[in-house]
Amino acid sequence: MSKAKFNLGMASYTLREFDLIKTAKMTRRVGLTHISLKSMHLPLDKDKNEIKEAAKKVREIGLDLYGCGVVYMSSREEAENAFTYAEAANMEVIIGVPDKELLSFIEDKVKEYDIKLAIHNHGPGDERYPSPDDVYEVVKDRDERMGLCLDIGHTKRLGEDPIQAIDKYAERLHDIHIKDISEASEAGGPVPMNRGVIDIPAVLEKIAEIEYEAVLGLEYEDKPEDPLPEIAESVGFMKGVLSLL
Amino acid sequence: MSKAKFNLGMASYTLREFDLIKTAKMTRRVGLTHISLKSMHLPLDKDKNEIKEAAKKVREIGLDLYGCGVVYMSSREEAENAFTYAEAANMEVIIGVPDKELLSFIEDKVKEYDIKLAIHNHGPGDERYPSPDDVYEVVKDRDERMGLCLDIGHTKRLGEDPIQAIDKYAERLHDIHIKDISEASEAGGPVPMNRGVIDIPAVLEKIAEIEYEAVLGLEYEDKPEDPLPEIAESVGFMKGVLSLL
Repeated sequence: MSKAKFNLGMASYTLREFDLIKTAKMTRRVGLTHISLKSMHLPLDKDKNEIKEAAKKVREIGLDLYGCGVVYMSSREEAENAFTYAEAANMEVIIGVPDKELLSFIEDKVKEYDIKLAIHNHGPGDERYPSPDDVYEVVKDRDERMGLCLDIGHTKRLGEDPIQAIDKYAERLHDIHIKDISEASEAGGPVPMNRGVIDIPAVLEKIAEIEYEAVLGLEYEDKPEDPLPEIAESVGFMKGVLSLL
Repeated sequence: MSKAKFNLGMASYTLREFDLIKTAKMTRRVGLTHISLKSMHLPLDKDKNEIKEAAKKVREIGLDLYGCGVVYMSSREEAENAFTYAEAANMEVIIGVPDKELLSFIEDKVKEYDIKLAIHNHGPGDERYPSPDDVYEVVKDRDERMGLCLDIGHTKRLGEDPIQAIDKYAERLHDIHIKDISEASEAGGPVPMNRGVIDIPAVLEKIAEIEYEAVLGLEYEDKPEDPLPEIAESVGFMKGVLSLL
């Protein structure tokens, strides 16, 4: 990991069939150090003390609990709650999908709480933010702590080039979801890394080159009941590439 | 895998708690293409037709069943049996540990059956072949089809440099067992690749450099009841490195 300054982590949606503690332990087993939690692992309506307690347990297992998401925000109440939740858990970033009319309100919250917002692009079918371009468009004139969670797979499913997006939006990348997919179209589904159409070594090289310093979150959506071998293969693959960068 | 001409395979001892069919399917699941079978998966005393039938099943699952081992040979009968067994299964190489007084007899069998013998070094505690040097010493003046199954881990456990051994014995490497270990001493135990003391990228680079064309067999001896994530991480790691060689 000479050139690379980023950390490898888990987007916990990958382990959605397992409880929080198992999810944390499985994440450690495959050698990852960072995790962002999806709501099935840490429900958004828990009270502050429950959130603090759960976050403590995850950290005691040896993980850097750096963020949450994907959090959908369709009202001021949901947006405000995302920030109080992230603050209680001492998270640095909310990976979110906010309604566009909430963005000014959310910008105030980003400043008030000093917590980043990384808007997630979801590819074909996403009416608000299919492409990283759509995210950049709404954050470019706002506080720098508002940026992208660039989803490599969904970007490729749009037929766009994730490497170009990494380059173009380097300054506003606050999180990345990394994965491989079976084909560069809406029908593209999850495959272990380097078994699909994405040039993962080139992606990693570009991420290292822009001196990205946040987290590369692995998201693998297949075989939710038994995903560990495919996850581990993907982590191993990235580490193998990074050992030579 | 530009420079690399070798194949990645499984040394089936790794999956010793599973039956033959499960072992073959698990090997495919982690993306390996080649397998060598240990006797718990294909007993040495099976009759010829049973061996042919079992070998057929493994190949139908999509694996290149290229060898067997480690096969211990302490008598002429055991040595002869190893060759009739390997012939019935249509294997190219026997990974073996023959008593030294049988080597002339075995050399005749290598010629008769045209099947290679790769003698396996087992590190500290092995009275016959602890080091690759001990293997080379007994094969160097014999038929070229007699050579080494260089065990990277056991070589390192001896305090020797596996990379030097790869270089030195390149011409006589008929199989390689690859693994990582926790420390370079007799106490060194199995760890997923790149979590231990062996410089796996440097090992792979050297193996590619000598234009090794046989199989790199993964051997992972820990967690026999549930080894797949660690196996997959190791396979992924090797593929990640190879993608840049």
